[in-house]
Amino acid sequence: MSLIIDCHGHYTTAPKALEAWRNQQIAGIKDPAAMPRAADLKISDDELRESIETNQLRLMKERGSDITLFSPRASFMAHHIGDFNVSSTWAAICNELCYRVSTLFPDNFVPVAMLPQSPGVDPKTCIPELEKCVKEYGAVGINLNPDPSGGHWTSPPLTDRHWYPIYEKMAEYDLPAMIHVSTSCNACFHTTGAHYLNADTTAFMQLIQGDLFKDFPTLKFLIPHGGGAVPYHWGRFRGLAQEMKKPLLDTHVMNNVFFDTCVYHQPGIDLLNTVIPVKNVLFASEMIGAVRGIDPTTGNYYDDTKRYIEASKILSAEDKHQIYEGNVRRVFPRLDARLKARNK
Amino acid sequence: MSLIIDCHGHYTTAPKALEAWRNQQIAGIKDPAAMPRAADLKISDDELRESIETNQLRLMKERGSDITLFSPRASFMAHHIGDFNVSSTWAAICNELCYRVSTLFPDNFVPVAMLPQSPGVDPKTCIPELEKCVKEYGAVGINLNPDPSGGHWTSPPLTDRHWYPIYEKMAEYDLPAMIHVSTSCNACFHTTGAHYLNADTTAFMQLIQGDLFKDFPTLKFLIPHGGGAVPYHWGRFRGLAQEMKKPLLDTHVMNNVFFDTCVYHQPGIDLLNTVIPVKNVLFASEMIGAVRGIDPTTGNYYDDTKRYIEASKILSAEDKHQIYEGNVRRVFPRLDARLKARNK
Repeated sequence: MSLIIDCHGHYTTAPKALEAWRNQQIAGIKDPAAMPRAADLKISDDELRESIETNQLRLMKERGSDITLFSPRASFMAHHIGDFNVSSTWAAICNELCYRVSTLFPDNFVPVAMLPQSPGVDPKTCIPELEKCVKEYGAVGINLNPDPSGGHWTSPPLTDRHWYPIYEKMAEYDLPAMIHVSTSCNACFHTTGAHYLNADTTAFMQLIQGDLFKDFPTLKFLIPHGGGAVPYHWGRFRGLAQEMKKPLLDTHVMNNVFFDTCVYHQPGIDLLNTVIPVKNVLFASEMIGAVRGIDPTTGNYYDDTKRYIEASKILSAEDKHQIYEGNVRRVFPRLDARLKARNK
Repeated sequence: MSLIIDCHGHYTTAPKALEAWRNQQIAGIKDPAAMPRAADLKISDDELRESIETNQLRLMKERGSDITLFSPRASFMAHHIGDFNVSSTWAAICNELCYRVSTLFPDNFVPVAMLPQSPGVDPKTCIPELEKCVKEYGAVGINLNPDPSGGHWTSPPLTDRHWYPIYEKMAEYDLPAMIHVSTSCNACFHTTGAHYLNADTTAFMQLIQGDLFKDFPTLKFLIPHGGGAVPYHWGRFRGLAQEMKKPLLDTHVMNNVFFDTCVYHQPGIDLLNTVIPVKNVLFASEMIGAVRGIDPTTGNYYDDTKRYIEASKILSAEDKHQIYEGNVRRVFPRLDARLKARNK
């Protein structure tokens, strides 16, 4: 029996006090007298417990998954709001809540950290929060936003030295990064229907264009939402790499880049598993997230991605084990160590 | 026997004099004394003929397609360069060349017009060029750039009234628009590996968010490159529309939105034809375009998309006829009229 590890969960169901605090913080940007202190936010363990037990944990039990890698709500990271100090206070609060959830439910939730990114600010300013999350909270990965501007794409590509301070820490701690943008404040891009998928596609193409993994051979990136448009256009990406005289994608990027299974219908999951090697696919649902409804064509939740893996005629039992557990433990070595310490 | 109509071809092989003229025009933006006149560009019919016979027409014969809907090179539209006058002169030159190709090869090439868009300029300024191309050149469609800024996405979404002057003319002339961006001048976005696909996904999501087809029930949009990420994430898009209390996609957008077959591998084409109704799929290759090489896994050109349609086990012979000819004639009524006038 595999452990079923969902590598992509966000705390989308945090008690309302969190959002109220954030709104006050945003008000405080214009009116410093209104700026709340971090200590003003009071959320009890019982409130945390209830927000999880009635939501993520309930669905995990219903659907049969064991562990969720749990990070702050992606759309609420909103790195474009305020300056570094605003992001820093907000990231600290959100990361602490995910940590507390992981201590309340140590068998089911493992923290992944958001970073206090801010547009135009050197990413090395994120290192103290990153180190705190790894050393004190036991974070096993980070979420890295390639566009902290929120849809204006004003940062350099991920292959630029701009990002190297983060990569050095990722290499030092053996931490993978999920490449995950946040809310779009560009009216052209719907957050979950365009900006997220575009960012996935964009990041993958940046990695093809560059040679980042020559400088950081152990770096691991998880591209969420099934890799955006990438598997569907796998021929295009192979062909573009060829035009650019890059090595085959297998060696150029696929030792370092992984896709999750947040693709919300059977034909999409089947395509993913037709073109992307099993070793590069990690189970995830992003539940409870952008698509919460029931698919009228199946009667099941769109984001119950385990059903699509189970129903796959492409994957063997061993393949499924790799996707549910083996690959996740390999890509997240600190998760593997944590599980081994718990005899799992 | 179907006519094989490729609805997505660009004049990527124009004689070098065109690019030289454009470079001079760009130099002329900073140095008005260097600005060339349109009449300075001299390209003979023989040069046009050779550029087509040795390239697109040769491959059309080899691969067995009959007609290409032919528009100016997409990446060279570069609407972000200069002002409206610069775009206007450039669009006129490029459209005239495609028209001349269509007169030299009337059985094989049919013009589609680019528009003289310019960032921040009212789209109604494009109407005179659009009308000239329809009335004098016999253009059967237009290419509409949802992001004339070239990767900064500073225009409003396609559902905004900003774009209505174009839509009114499209409705008046029964002209479909292919939604096609141009070169990215944002370093984050590779032009053909990210910006094109992102624009396709973005446009589709904008159409889901809005209710444009209530105002323009006959409007037809062709989303190229197989619809970007859309078919792969069909469950996500259905689910997001559901969250937004929109009608089912079938009625909300799929009477007005069509996808081409510019997907450069068999599993991608198979996914397209698994999830998207046959009536919404139009044959295209975008040959000679972004991906010109031979796929080492098949020994065939990546962009020889007819092979994937031929090899499809999902499509019946009648389905293939619709994709090759029937749907293209229905979506491009002015093409249908032109073919009927030629007894085809």
